Amino acid sequence: MTYCVAMRLNHSLIFMSDTRTNAGVDNFASTRKMFTFGVPGERSITIMTAGNLATTQALISLLRERTEAADDRDPGILNQPTMFQVARLVGSTLREVISYSTPEGQQSSDAFSASVIVGGQIKGGAPTVFLVYPEGNFIEISEDTPFFQIGETKYGKPILVRAFGPEMSTEDALKLLLVSFDSTVKSNLSVAPPFDVHVYDNDSFDQTSISRIEIDDPAYQAISSGWGQALKEALDGLPAYKI
Amino acid sequence: MTYCVAMRLNHSLIFMSDTRTNAGVDNFASTRKMFTFGVPGERSITIMTAGNLATTQALISLLRERTEAADDRDPGILNQPTMFQVARLVGSTLREVISYSTPEGQQSSDAFSASVIVGGQIKGGAPTVFLVYPEGNFIEISEDTPFFQIGETKYGKPILVRAFGPEMSTEDALKLLLVSFDSTVKSNLSVAPPFDVHVYDNDSFDQTSISRIEIDDPAYQAISSGWGQALKEALDGLPAYKI
Repeated sequence: MTYCVAMRLNHSLIFMSDTRTNAGVDNFASTRKMFTFGVPGERSITIMTAGNLATTQALISLLRERTEAADDRDPGILNQPTMFQVARLVGSTLREVISYSTPEGQQSSDAFSASVIVGGQIKGGAPTVFLVYPEGNFIEISEDTPFFQIGETKYGKPILVRAFGPEMSTEDALKLLLVSFDSTVKSNLSVAPPFDVHVYDNDSFDQTSISRIEIDDPAYQAISSGWGQALKEALDGLPAYKI
Repeated sequence: MTYCVAMRLNHSLIFMSDTRTNAGVDNFASTRKMFTFGVPGERSITIMTAGNLATTQALISLLRERTEAADDRDPGILNQPTMFQVARLVGSTLREVISYSTPEGQQSSDAFSASVIVGGQIKGGAPTVFLVYPEGNFIEISEDTPFFQIGETKYGKPILVRAFGPEMSTEDALKLLLVSFDSTVKSNLSVAPPFDVHVYDNDSFDQTSISRIEIDDPAYQAISSGWGQALKEALDGLPAYKI
Protein backbone atom coordinates (compact mmCIF):
# COMPACT_ATOMS: atom_id res chain seq x y z
CA MET A 1 0.00 0.00 0.00
CA THR A 2 0.87 3.61 0.33
CA TYR A 3 -0.07 6.61 2.41
CA CYS A 4 -0.34 10.11 0.94
CA VAL A 5 -1.97 13.21 2.37
CA ALA A 6 -2.57 16.63 0.84
CA MET A 7 -3.92 19.48 2.92
CA ARG A 8 -4.87 23.05 2.16
CA LEU A 9 -3.91 25.62 4.76
CA ASN A 10 -4.80 29.29 4.55
CA HIS A 11 -1.30 30.14 3.35
CA SER A 12 -0.05 26.99 1.66
CA LEU A 13 -0.62 23.51 0.31
CA ILE A 14 1.25 20.64 1.94
CA PHE A 15 1.79 17.26 0.33
CA MET A 16 3.34 14.25 2.04
CA SER A 17 3.82 10.70 0.75
CA ASP A 18 5.56 7.56 1.98
CA THR A 19 7.86 5.53 -0.25
CA ARG A 20 7.16 1.87 0.39
CA THR A 21 5.86 -0.29 -2.42
CA ASN A 22 5.14 -3.97 -2.05
CA ALA A 23 3.69 -6.98 -3.81
CA GLY A 24 3.11 -9.34 -0.93
CA VAL A 25 5.23 -9.11 2.21
CA ASP A 26 8.31 -10.73 0.68
CA ASN A 27 8.68 -8.30 -2.17
CA PHE A 28 8.98 -4.71 -1.12
CA ALA A 29 11.04 -1.75 -2.21
CA SER A 30 11.28 1.97 -1.92
CA THR A 31 9.82 4.14 -4.64
CA ARG A 32 8.89 7.77 -5.06
CA LYS A 33 5.18 8.52 -5.17
CA MET A 34 5.37 12.30 -5.38
CA PHE A 35 6.01 14.03 -8.69
CA THR A 36 6.14 17.66 -9.62
CA PHE A 37 5.54 19.59 -12.82
CA GLY A 38 6.15 23.28 -12.95
CA VAL A 39 6.99 26.46 -14.78
CA PRO A 40 8.71 28.84 -12.35
CA GLY A 41 6.64 31.94 -11.81
CA GLU A 42 3.68 30.50 -13.70
CA ARG A 43 2.55 27.13 -12.28
CA SER A 44 3.36 24.47 -9.72
CA ILE A 45 1.67 21.07 -9.88
CA THR A 46 2.25 18.21 -7.46
CA ILE A 47 0.96 14.69 -8.06
CA MET A 48 0.89 11.82 -5.56
CA THR A 49 -0.14 8.29 -6.51
CA ALA A 50 -1.44 5.19 -4.76
CA GLY A 51 -2.31 1.79 -6.18
CA ASN A 52 -0.83 -0.48 -8.82
CA LEU A 53 2.75 0.64 -9.40
CA ALA A 54 2.77 -0.23 -13.09
CA THR A 55 -0.33 1.91 -13.54
CA THR A 56 0.98 4.89 -11.59
CA GLN A 57 4.40 4.80 -13.26
CA ALA A 58 2.80 4.63 -16.70
CA LEU A 59 0.57 7.55 -15.74
CA ILE A 60 3.49 9.73 -14.68
CA SER A 61 5.59 8.69 -17.69
CA LEU A 62 2.78 9.56 -20.08
CA LEU A 63 2.17 12.90 -18.40
CA ARG A 64 5.89 13.67 -18.52
CA GLU A 65 6.38 12.50 -22.10
CA ARG A 66 3.52 14.65 -23.30
CA THR A 67 5.12 17.75 -21.83
CA GLU A 68 8.28 17.05 -23.75
CA ALA A 69 7.41 15.76 -27.21
CA ALA A 70 6.72 18.78 -29.38
CA ASP A 71 3.95 17.18 -31.44
CA ASP A 72 2.12 15.86 -28.44
CA ARG A 73 2.53 19.05 -26.53
CA ASP A 74 -1.00 20.27 -26.82
CA PRO A 75 -2.60 17.97 -24.28
CA GLY A 76 0.38 18.50 -21.96
CA ILE A 77 0.00 19.20 -18.28
CA LEU A 78 2.09 22.36 -18.66
CA ASN A 79 -0.34 23.78 -21.19
CA GLN A 80 -3.60 23.43 -19.32
CA PRO A 81 -5.11 26.80 -18.45
CA THR A 82 -6.51 25.83 -15.01
CA MET A 83 -6.02 23.29 -12.23
CA PHE A 84 -9.45 21.90 -13.11
CA GLN A 85 -8.22 21.13 -16.63
CA VAL A 86 -5.06 19.59 -15.15
CA ALA A 87 -7.22 17.27 -13.03
CA ARG A 88 -9.27 16.33 -16.12
CA LEU A 89 -6.10 15.55 -18.01
CA VAL A 90 -4.73 13.42 -15.18
CA GLY A 91 -8.09 11.63 -14.91
CA SER A 92 -8.33 10.85 -18.60
CA THR A 93 -4.71 9.71 -18.74
CA LEU A 94 -5.25 7.48 -15.70
CA ARG A 95 -8.32 5.94 -17.31
CA GLU A 96 -6.38 5.40 -20.52
CA VAL A 97 -3.61 3.53 -18.63
CA ILE A 98 -6.02 1.36 -16.65
CA SER A 99 -8.15 0.46 -19.66
CA TYR A 100 -4.99 -0.53 -21.56
CA SER A 101 -4.20 -3.14 -18.88
CA THR A 102 -7.73 -4.34 -18.23
CA PRO A 103 -8.92 -7.25 -20.38
CA GLU A 104 -11.83 -6.21 -22.52
CA GLY A 105 -15.26 -6.89 -21.13
CA GLN A 106 -14.10 -6.77 -17.53
CA GLN A 107 -15.92 -3.78 -16.20
CA SER A 108 -14.22 -3.20 -12.89
CA SER A 109 -10.78 -4.51 -12.18
CA ASP A 110 -9.18 -3.74 -8.86
CA ALA A 111 -5.87 -5.20 -9.93
CA PHE A 112 -4.78 -2.28 -12.08
CA SER A 113 -6.52 0.39 -10.09
CA ALA A 114 -4.92 3.56 -8.77
CA SER A 115 -5.89 6.82 -7.09
CA VAL A 116 -4.19 10.14 -7.56
CA ILE A 117 -3.98 13.40 -5.69
CA VAL A 118 -3.16 16.37 -7.88
CA GLY A 119 -2.76 19.85 -6.49
CA GLY A 120 -1.04 23.16 -7.00
CA GLN A 121 -1.65 26.54 -8.51
CA ILE A 122 -1.66 28.11 -11.96
CA LYS A 123 -1.29 31.86 -12.36
CA GLY A 124 -4.72 33.47 -12.39
CA GLY A 125 -6.28 30.76 -10.23
CA ALA A 126 -6.34 29.83 -6.58
CA PRO A 127 -4.27 27.01 -5.08
CA THR A 128 -6.34 23.84 -4.94
CA VAL A 129 -6.20 20.05 -4.71
CA PHE A 130 -8.14 17.30 -6.49
CA LEU A 131 -8.58 13.63 -5.67
CA VAL A 132 -8.77 11.65 -8.91
CA TYR A 133 -10.50 8.26 -8.91
CA PRO A 134 -9.52 5.30 -11.10
CA GLU A 135 -12.58 6.01 -13.25
CA GLY A 136 -11.07 9.36 -14.17
CA ASN A 137 -13.56 11.54 -12.32
CA PHE A 138 -12.47 13.64 -9.36
CA ILE A 139 -13.46 15.79 -6.40
CA GLU A 140 -12.00 19.07 -5.22
CA ILE A 141 -10.79 20.01 -1.77
CA SER A 142 -13.08 22.40 0.12
CA GLU A 143 -13.49 24.08 3.46
CA ASP A 144 -15.54 21.13 4.67
CA THR A 145 -13.06 18.60 3.30
CA PRO A 146 -9.78 20.36 3.93
CA PHE A 147 -7.50 17.35 3.34
CA PHE A 148 -7.35 14.28 1.09
CA GLN A 149 -5.80 10.92 1.87
CA ILE A 150 -5.10 8.02 -0.48
CA GLY A 151 -3.76 4.54 0.18
CA GLU A 152 -3.77 3.16 3.71
CA THR A 153 -5.86 6.01 5.08
CA LYS A 154 -7.61 4.70 8.17
CA TYR A 155 -4.90 4.57 10.83
CA GLY A 156 -3.86 8.15 10.33
CA LYS A 157 -7.30 9.68 9.91
CA PRO A 158 -8.47 10.17 13.53
CA ILE A 159 -5.63 12.52 14.42
CA LEU A 160 -6.21 14.57 11.26
CA VAL A 161 -9.95 14.77 11.96
CA ARG A 162 -9.31 16.01 15.48
CA ALA A 163 -6.35 18.31 15.12
CA PHE A 164 -6.40 19.82 11.64
CA GLY A 165 -7.29 23.45 11.17
CA PRO A 166 -6.66 25.58 8.07
CA GLU A 167 -5.12 28.31 10.21
CA MET A 168 -2.25 26.06 11.36
CA SER A 169 1.31 27.15 10.78
CA THR A 170 3.36 25.14 8.29
CA GLU A 171 5.45 23.75 11.15
CA ASP A 172 2.41 22.59 13.10
CA ALA A 173 0.93 21.03 10.00
CA LEU A 174 4.16 19.14 9.31
CA LYS A 175 4.17 17.91 12.90
CA LEU A 176 0.56 16.76 12.55
CA LEU A 177 1.33 15.01 9.28
CA LEU A 178 4.34 13.25 10.79
CA VAL A 179 2.20 12.00 13.68
CA SER A 180 -0.43 10.77 11.23
CA PHE A 181 2.23 9.03 9.12
CA ASP A 182 3.98 7.61 12.17
CA SER A 183 0.70 6.17 13.51
CA THR A 184 0.21 4.45 10.17
CA VAL A 185 3.78 3.14 10.03
CA LYS A 186 3.44 1.72 13.54
CA SER A 187 0.26 -0.15 12.58
CA ASN A 188 0.88 -1.28 9.02
CA LEU A 189 3.89 -2.89 7.35
CA SER A 190 3.03 -1.54 3.91
CA VAL A 191 3.72 2.10 4.79
CA ALA A 192 7.25 3.22 5.66
CA PRO A 193 9.69 6.14 5.63
CA PRO A 194 11.39 7.98 4.06
CA PHE A 195 8.59 10.48 3.47
CA ASP A 196 8.55 13.00 0.65
CA VAL A 197 7.25 16.47 1.51
CA HIS A 198 6.31 19.41 -0.63
CA VAL A 199 5.29 22.69 0.97
CA TYR A 200 3.83 25.01 -1.63
CA ASP A 201 3.35 28.58 -0.43
CA ASN A 202 0.38 30.28 -2.07
CA ASP A 203 1.22 32.49 -5.06
CA SER A 204 4.89 31.52 -5.00
CA PHE A 205 4.69 29.44 -8.21
CA ASP A 206 7.93 27.73 -7.32
CA GLN A 207 8.92 24.25 -6.14
CA THR A 208 11.87 24.99 -3.96
CA SER A 209 10.52 23.48 -0.76
CA ILE A 210 10.60 19.79 -1.63
CA SER A 211 12.44 17.52 0.74
CA ARG A 212 12.72 13.97 2.00
CA ILE A 213 12.42 12.97 5.65
CA GLU A 214 14.59 9.94 6.34
CA ILE A 215 13.82 7.39 9.04
CA ASP A 216 16.81 8.53 11.12
CA ASP A 217 15.94 12.22 10.87
CA PRO A 218 16.37 13.39 14.48
CA ALA A 219 13.38 15.73 14.41
CA TYR A 220 11.15 12.94 13.06
CA GLN A 221 12.50 10.54 15.66
CA ALA A 222 11.79 13.05 18.41
CA ILE A 223 8.20 13.41 17.21
CA SER A 224 7.75 9.66 16.80
CA SER A 225 9.08 8.75 20.24
CA GLY A 226 7.60 11.81 21.93
CA TRP A 227 4.13 11.05 20.62
CA GLY A 228 3.74 7.82 22.60
CA GLN A 229 4.57 9.67 25.79
CA ALA A 230 2.40 12.65 24.86
CA LEU A 231 -0.56 10.35 24.18
CA LYS A 232 -0.19 8.66 27.55
CA GLU A 233 -0.14 12.04 29.27
CA ALA A 234 -3.17 13.15 27.25
CA LEU A 235 -5.00 10.01 28.40
CA ASP A 236 -3.98 10.63 32.00
CA GLY A 237 -5.46 14.09 31.78
CA LEU A 238 -8.90 12.81 30.76
CA PRO A 239 -11.54 12.14 33.40
CA ALA A 240 -11.71 8.51 34.56
CA TYR A 241 -14.51 6.25 33.44
CA LYS A 242 -16.09 4.22 36.22
CA ILE A 243 -18.46 1.39 35.39
CA MET B 1 -19.38 -2.95 10.15
CA THR B 2 -18.64 -3.29 13.81
CA TYR B 3 -15.89 -2.56 16.27
CA CYS B 4 -15.05 -4.92 19.14
CA VAL B 5 -11.96 -5.07 21.34
CA ALA B 6 -10.91 -7.57 23.99
CA MET B 7 -7.87 -6.94 26.15
CA ARG B 8 -6.14 -8.93 28.84
CA LEU B 9 -4.87 -6.94 31.80
CA ASN B 10 -2.91 -8.45 34.67
CA HIS B 11 -6.00 -8.52 36.85
CA SER B 12 -8.92 -8.74 34.44
CA LEU B 13 -10.27 -9.19 30.94
CA ILE B 14 -12.14 -6.30 29.36
CA PHE B 15 -14.51 -6.63 26.42
CA MET B 16 -16.13 -3.74 24.57
CA SER B 17 -18.34 -3.77 21.48
CA ASP B 18 -20.37 -1.23 19.56
CA THR B 19 -23.97 -1.87 18.54
CA ARG B 20 -24.42 -0.55 15.01
CA THR B 21 -25.35 -2.94 12.25
CA ASN B 22 -25.90 -1.88 8.69
CA ALA B 23 -26.55 -3.14 5.19
CA GLY B 24 -25.67 -0.14 3.10
CA VAL B 25 -25.97 3.35 4.53
CA ASP B 26 -29.76 3.50 4.28
CA ASN B 27 -30.44 0.43 6.35
CA PHE B 28 -28.95 0.50 9.78
CA ALA B 29 -30.06 -0.53 13.23
CA SER B 30 -28.79 -1.18 16.70
CA THR B 31 -27.99 -4.73 17.73
CA ARG B 32 -26.11 -6.40 20.54
CA LYS B 33 -22.81 -8.02 19.57
CA MET B 34 -21.71 -9.15 23.01
CA PHE B 35 -23.06 -12.36 24.50
CA THR B 36 -22.25 -14.13 27.74
CA PHE B 37 -22.46 -17.73 28.87
CA GLY B 38 -21.71 -18.62 32.46
CA VAL B 39 -22.07 -20.83 35.47
CA PRO B 40 -21.57 -18.68 38.59
CA GLY B 41 -18.51 -19.78 40.52
CA GLU B 42 -17.40 -22.11 37.73
CA ARG B 43 -17.05 -20.33 34.37
CA SER B 44 -17.57 -17.05 32.58
CA ILE B 45 -17.46 -16.87 28.79
CA THR B 46 -17.91 -13.71 26.71
CA ILE B 47 -18.38 -13.76 22.94
CA MET B 48 -18.26 -10.78 20.58
CA THR B 49 -19.09 -11.04 16.89
CA ALA B 50 -18.36 -9.09 13.71
CA GLY B 51 -19.47 -9.77 10.17
CA ASN B 52 -22.66 -10.98 8.52
CA LEU B 53 -25.47 -10.53 11.05
CA ALA B 54 -27.41 -13.60 9.91
CA THR B 55 -24.27 -15.68 10.43
CA THR B 56 -23.43 -14.30 13.85
CA GLN B 57 -27.02 -14.54 15.11
CA ALA B 58 -27.24 -18.14 13.93
CA LEU B 59 -23.95 -18.86 15.65
CA ILE B 60 -25.11 -17.46 18.98
CA SER B 61 -28.52 -19.13 18.67
CA LEU B 62 -26.94 -22.51 18.00
CA LEU B 63 -24.50 -22.11 20.88
CA ARG B 64 -27.34 -21.12 23.18
CA GLU B 65 -29.74 -23.81 22.01
CA ARG B 66 -27.16 -26.49 22.57
CA THR B 67 -26.69 -25.46 26.17
CA GLU B 68 -30.43 -25.85 26.72
CA ALA B 69 -31.67 -28.89 24.82
CA ALA B 70 -30.98 -31.94 26.96
CA ASP B 71 -30.12 -34.27 24.08
CA ASP B 72 -27.80 -31.86 22.43
CA ARG B 73 -26.18 -30.87 25.67
CA ASP B 74 -22.94 -32.73 25.19
CA PRO B 75 -21.33 -30.39 22.69
CA GLY B 76 -22.57 -27.44 24.74
CA ILE B 77 -20.41 -24.46 25.58
CA LEU B 78 -21.17 -24.92 29.29
CA ASN B 79 -19.73 -28.44 29.25
CA GLN B 80 -16.36 -27.80 27.67
CA PRO B 81 -13.51 -28.46 30.11
CA THR B 82 -11.21 -25.63 28.97
CA MET B 83 -11.33 -22.30 27.16
CA PHE B 84 -9.38 -23.91 24.31
CA GLN B 85 -12.20 -26.42 23.83
CA VAL B 86 -14.72 -23.56 23.99
CA ALA B 87 -12.85 -21.80 21.17
CA ARG B 88 -12.83 -25.03 19.14
CA LEU B 89 -16.56 -25.40 19.64
CA VAL B 90 -17.21 -21.80 18.61
CA GLY B 91 -14.96 -22.27 15.57
CA SER B 92 -16.66 -25.46 14.41
CA THR B 93 -20.12 -23.98 14.97
CA LEU B 94 -19.15 -20.85 13.03
CA ARG B 95 -17.86 -22.96 10.15
CA GLU B 96 -21.06 -24.99 10.20
CA VAL B 97 -23.19 -21.82 9.94
CA ILE B 98 -21.12 -20.31 7.13
CA SER B 99 -20.98 -23.51 5.08
CA TYR B 100 -24.77 -23.84 5.41
CA SER B 101 -25.21 -20.45 3.70
CA THR B 102 -22.45 -20.77 1.12
CA PRO B 103 -23.43 -22.29 -2.23
CA GLU B 104 -21.59 -25.52 -2.81
CA GLY B 105 -18.43 -25.27 -4.85
CA GLN B 106 -17.79 -21.67 -3.88
CA GLN B 107 -14.58 -21.91 -1.91
CA SER B 108 -14.36 -18.54 -0.30
CA SER B 109 -17.37 -16.34 0.17
CA ASP B 110 -16.97 -13.05 1.93
CA ALA B 111 -20.69 -12.45 1.98
CA PHE B 112 -21.48 -14.79 4.85
CA SER B 113 -18.21 -14.35 6.68
CA ALA B 114 -17.82 -13.46 10.34
CA SER B 115 -15.12 -13.20 12.99
CA VAL B 116 -15.55 -13.91 16.66
CA ILE B 117 -13.74 -13.03 19.85
CA VAL B 118 -14.31 -15.51 22.66
CA GLY B 119 -12.77 -15.05 26.08
CA GLY B 120 -13.22 -15.81 29.74
CA GLN B 121 -12.16 -18.29 32.36
CA ILE B 122 -13.11 -21.82 33.42
CA LYS B 123 -12.21 -23.05 36.90
CA GLY B 124 -8.82 -24.76 36.82
CA GLY B 125 -7.59 -22.61 33.93
CA ALA B 126 -6.27 -19.11 33.41
CA PRO B 127 -8.35 -16.27 31.94
CA THR B 128 -7.71 -16.02 28.22
CA VAL B 129 -9.10 -14.75 24.92
CA PHE B 130 -9.24 -16.28 21.44
CA LEU B 131 -9.84 -14.71 18.04
CA VAL B 132 -11.81 -17.15 15.87
CA TYR B 133 -11.59 -16.84 12.09
CA PRO B 134 -14.42 -17.65 9.64
CA GLU B 135 -12.56 -20.84 8.74
CA GLY B 136 -13.00 -22.05 12.33
CA ASN B 137 -9.36 -21.86 13.35
CA PHE B 138 -8.22 -19.39 15.99
CA ILE B 139 -5.35 -17.68 17.76
CA GLU B 140 -4.87 -16.99 21.45
CA ILE B 141 -4.04 -13.72 23.15
CA SER B 142 -0.45 -13.48 24.45
CA GLU B 143 1.92 -11.07 26.11
CA ASP B 144 3.09 -9.93 22.69
CA THR B 145 -0.46 -9.61 21.37
CA PRO B 146 -2.29 -8.36 24.44
CA PHE B 147 -5.48 -7.27 22.69
CA PHE B 148 -7.69 -8.41 19.82
CA GLN B 149 -9.84 -6.26 17.56
CA ILE B 150 -12.48 -7.32 15.05
CA GLY B 151 -14.56 -5.33 12.58
CA GLU B 152 -13.50 -1.79 11.68
CA THR B 153 -10.15 -2.09 13.46
CA LYS B 154 -7.85 0.40 11.80
CA TYR B 155 -8.97 3.79 13.11
CA GLY B 156 -8.76 2.73 16.74
CA LYS B 157 -5.55 0.74 16.55
CA PRO B 158 -2.84 3.42 16.80
CA ILE B 159 -3.94 4.61 20.24
CA LEU B 160 -4.10 1.02 21.52
CA VAL B 161 -0.65 0.26 20.12
CA ARG B 162 0.80 3.30 21.84
CA ALA B 163 -0.96 3.43 25.17
CA PHE B 164 -1.90 -0.11 26.16
CA GLY B 165 -0.05 -1.80 29.01
CA PRO B 166 -1.18 -4.93 30.89
CA GLU B 167 -0.53 -3.20 34.21
CA MET B 168 -3.20 -0.56 33.54
CA SER B 169 -6.01 -0.12 36.02
CA THR B 170 -9.50 -1.07 34.89
CA GLU B 171 -10.47 2.60 34.84
CA ASP B 172 -7.53 3.58 32.66
CA ALA B 173 -8.22 0.69 30.31
CA LEU B 174 -11.86 1.75 29.97
CA LYS B 175 -10.75 5.28 29.23
CA LEU B 176 -8.34 3.99 26.58
CA LEU B 177 -11.04 1.81 25.04
CA LEU B 178 -13.49 4.71 24.93
CA VAL B 179 -10.91 6.87 23.16
CA SER B 180 -10.25 4.08 20.65
CA PHE B 181 -13.99 3.60 20.07
CA ASP B 182 -14.62 7.32 19.86
CA SER B 183 -11.84 7.75 17.27
CA THR B 184 -13.52 5.05 15.19
CA VAL B 185 -17.00 6.54 15.57
CA LYS B 186 -15.69 9.95 14.48
CA SER B 187 -14.15 8.45 11.32
CA ASN B 188 -16.62 5.77 10.27
CA LEU B 189 -20.40 5.80 9.99
CA SER B 190 -20.72 2.05 10.50
CA VAL B 191 -19.60 2.11 14.13
CA ALA B 192 -21.72 3.85 16.77
CA PRO B 193 -22.70 3.90 20.45
CA PRO B 194 -24.12 2.59 22.68
CA PHE B 195 -21.19 0.40 23.63
CA ASP B 196 -21.47 -2.83 25.61
CA VAL B 197 -18.78 -3.44 28.20
CA HIS B 198 -17.88 -6.48 30.23
CA VAL B 199 -15.15 -6.30 32.86
CA TYR B 200 -14.25 -9.78 34.05
CA ASP B 201 -12.06 -9.83 37.16
CA ASN B 202 -9.71 -12.81 37.21
CA ASP B 203 -10.89 -15.80 39.28
CA SER B 204 -14.25 -14.18 40.00
CA PHE B 205 -16.24 -16.56 37.76
CA ASP B 206 -19.14 -14.16 37.73
CA GLN B 207 -20.69 -11.82 35.20
CA THR B 208 -21.93 -9.01 37.35
CA SER B 209 -19.94 -6.23 35.70
CA ILE B 210 -21.71 -5.96 32.36
CA SER B 211 -23.02 -2.59 31.35
CA ARG B 212 -23.95 -0.39 28.43
CA ILE B 213 -22.50 3.04 27.75
CA GLU B 214 -25.08 5.25 26.05
CA ILE B 215 -24.20 8.08 23.69
CA ASP B 216 -25.35 10.68 26.23
CA ASP B 217 -23.41 9.17 29.13
CA PRO B 218 -21.78 12.26 30.68
CA ALA B 219 -18.48 10.49 31.44
CA TYR B 220 -18.23 9.24 27.86
CA GLN B 221 -19.09 12.68 26.54
CA ALA B 222 -16.39 14.22 28.74
CA ILE B 223 -13.82 11.79 27.35
CA SER B 224 -14.99 12.27 23.78
CA SER B 225 -14.92 16.05 23.86
CA GLY B 226 -11.84 16.19 26.10
CA TRP B 227 -9.83 14.01 23.76
CA GLY B 228 -9.79 16.49 20.89
CA GLN B 229 -8.42 19.16 23.20
CA ALA B 230 -5.97 16.75 24.83
CA LEU B 231 -4.65 15.70 21.40
CA LYS B 232 -4.08 19.31 20.38
CA GLU B 233 -2.17 19.95 23.58
CA ALA B 234 -0.15 16.77 23.07
CA LEU B 235 0.72 17.97 19.56
CA ASP B 236 1.68 21.40 20.90
CA GLY B 237 4.07 19.73 23.34
CA LEU B 238 5.99 17.94 20.58
CA PRO B 239 9.09 19.53 19.09
CA ALA B 240 8.47 21.46 15.87
CA TYR B 241 9.48 20.06 12.50
CA LYS B 242 11.28 22.53 10.29
CA ILE B 243 11.84 21.72 6.63
